[in-house]
Amino acid sequence: MRASFYEGAGRFRIGAAEVPKAGHDEALLRVRRVGICGTDLHIFQGHLDHRVPRGGVIGHETLAEIAEAPAASGFRAGERVVVEPLRVCGACRACRTGAAYLCYRLKVLGVDEPGGMQEFWTVATDRLLSVPATLSDDEAAMIEPLAVAAHDVRRAQVSAGDAVVVIGGGPIGALIAMVARQRGARVIVSELNPFRVEMLAKLGIDVVGPGRDLAAFVEEWTGGDGADVVFEVTGNAAAVRAMTGLVRVQGTISMVAIHAEPIPVDLYRFFARELTLHGSRLYARQDWEEALRLAATGAVTLAPLVSRRLPLESLQQGMEEALRGGPVMKVLIDLAP
Amino acid sequence: MRASFYEGAGRFRIGAAEVPKAGHDEALLRVRRVGICGTDLHIFQGHLDHRVPRGGVIGHETLAEIAEAPAASGFRAGERVVVEPLRVCGACRACRTGAAYLCYRLKVLGVDEPGGMQEFWTVATDRLLSVPATLSDDEAAMIEPLAVAAHDVRRAQVSAGDAVVVIGGGPIGALIAMVARQRGARVIVSELNPFRVEMLAKLGIDVVGPGRDLAAFVEEWTGGDGADVVFEVTGNAAAVRAMTGLVRVQGTISMVAIHAEPIPVDLYRFFARELTLHGSRLYARQDWEEALRLAATGAVTLAPLVSRRLPLESLQQGMEEALRGGPVMKVLIDLAP
Repeated sequence: MRASFYEGAGRFRIGAAEVPKAGHDEALLRVRRVGICGTDLHIFQGHLDHRVPRGGVIGHETLAEIAEAPAASGFRAGERVVVEPLRVCGACRACRTGAAYLCYRLKVLGVDEPGGMQEFWTVATDRLLSVPATLSDDEAAMIEPLAVAAHDVRRAQVSAGDAVVVIGGGPIGALIAMVARQRGARVIVSELNPFRVEMLAKLGIDVVGPGRDLAAFVEEWTGGDGADVVFEVTGNAAAVRAMTGLVRVQGTISMVAIHAEPIPVDLYRFFARELTLHGSRLYARQDWEEALRLAATGAVTLAPLVSRRLPLESLQQGMEEALRGGPVMKVLIDLAP
Repeated sequence: MRASFYEGAGRFRIGAAEVPKAGHDEALLRVRRVGICGTDLHIFQGHLDHRVPRGGVIGHETLAEIAEAPAASGFRAGERVVVEPLRVCGACRACRTGAAYLCYRLKVLGVDEPGGMQEFWTVATDRLLSVPATLSDDEAAMIEPLAVAAHDVRRAQVSAGDAVVVIGGGPIGALIAMVARQRGARVIVSELNPFRVEMLAKLGIDVVGPGRDLAAFVEEWTGGDGADVVFEVTGNAAAVRAMTGLVRVQGTISMVAIHAEPIPVDLYRFFARELTLHGSRLYARQDWEEALRLAATGAVTLAPLVSRRLPLESLQQGMEEALRGGPVMKVLIDLAP
């Protein structure tokens, strides 16, 4: 079978590998689609070399079909599944208190362990969720990022009537905006990339684009109150500088982005306005179920977010394009036979 | 009457002033004690010159007795009262949503408007709370900082069995530790000043003193879980660096200190562990009532925290001593006749 291998910063190799053997509680999956995610771009730049081995197979946004599965699992050959790509210890504080996705010894499939960027993949059957027939392969490949967005919105307790600001209108930012709107919130997205500004507008999302003063906009938009919830989805220091000035008294900032280095934060504003900042990462099983429900009912529109579909052989090119930005939202690797 | 006047950074003047006239809804107070607080030290250093006018009278931790009050207020001459030193607009987002102490146009008596560092003071009667006879004047002068601590512990939702770390064992840190312990939490305080280390130990508070590795201590103390709640009470960048490493998955950091400048924060840790940071400031009326209850029942010990009592004429010296640190906790100005 064909597989991709991480060979160090900036380099992927495509090569042959043996079809893996499924263990006792595992299914053998035939992979159909894998999304390229922000985390993958961090891997591509060598930021996660302490976690991703040389020769490792990445990819954690996967749609696959069952090639073989234990009868007791209930999964049948040919059935389409998405993969919750986490392996947890079951014993740490996080696992003991209902937040196993934050396991102190968490292994992410496609980061710490082999992922979906290969034709066949073995995964524990308790990590699989069946995909409704109404969803296309492309849409189903977006369930993982939609589960992230569903988690972020749930954790931030976004409510009907809330004024929500999303800083950063890439795939996760756009999905957060759609999920929050679905909850009855008023939502604006701040985005500088003109391609993304146009796409968000086409999706009916209100955008504050380049050259506009976000703080002044939010001030007026909320009648001087400030936003109820701000999502930081960019990973830029400028967004961290801006975020504290956008939120209302006792409002919430959700940190969805990865900031590799400590960033200056206006802690006085936290004190003066009793703001709350919380991190928001990954997802619980309920977020996957919510994502499947939102996608299947059409409450969230996924297909337009897919900018490009490339074969596995073009993984390197896909990474470079996604990293360069420009006219791109989600890039999918298409492995369907 | 005698009064003190802020004359710019590092300078107070003591002089004569007319006894103020109480307005329609005000009482005339004869001041007995005023505490010197961290905010007062910021004023003394000129950090709050945008709020404190030249010639202004500071002081917001006040015990007084009623000299005159409107009959309808229910207060009688000679009755001892403490002062909730806030004036709010009643119309902004904070006032409309039950958090008036965070009013967008908040005026703090003793900062933005005249405070207690004078023999007589006029204050709206709805800002006064009666003091139980069991409390000494010194103890009653500590009700304001105790209300701060009660607020901080309430807002952080400290519960029985929680592992709580307080970074900074000055008056507020010590009071937070005592209130949290009262709720059934296990508490340690991190403090470097040897005088304070010794005083905290005498109060039965466990202290991690100078030369010890706080992170390693907390790791072992919590069996590798991390603390449930960390209070940052120092205002030092080193404490901000440390705080994110001390708290458990989905744990809480309470920002009680004032950081005048943006400080680098490990936002990745917020993301990875889904930590929460919230600011905690001042108090609602219920926090004052809780403070009076805790003090009157002896649940919290206040008297040992008073290091020194100085006459109004020595205000400058008191500020300098409190600012210098060393062998000092709370300095009170004694104006009792």
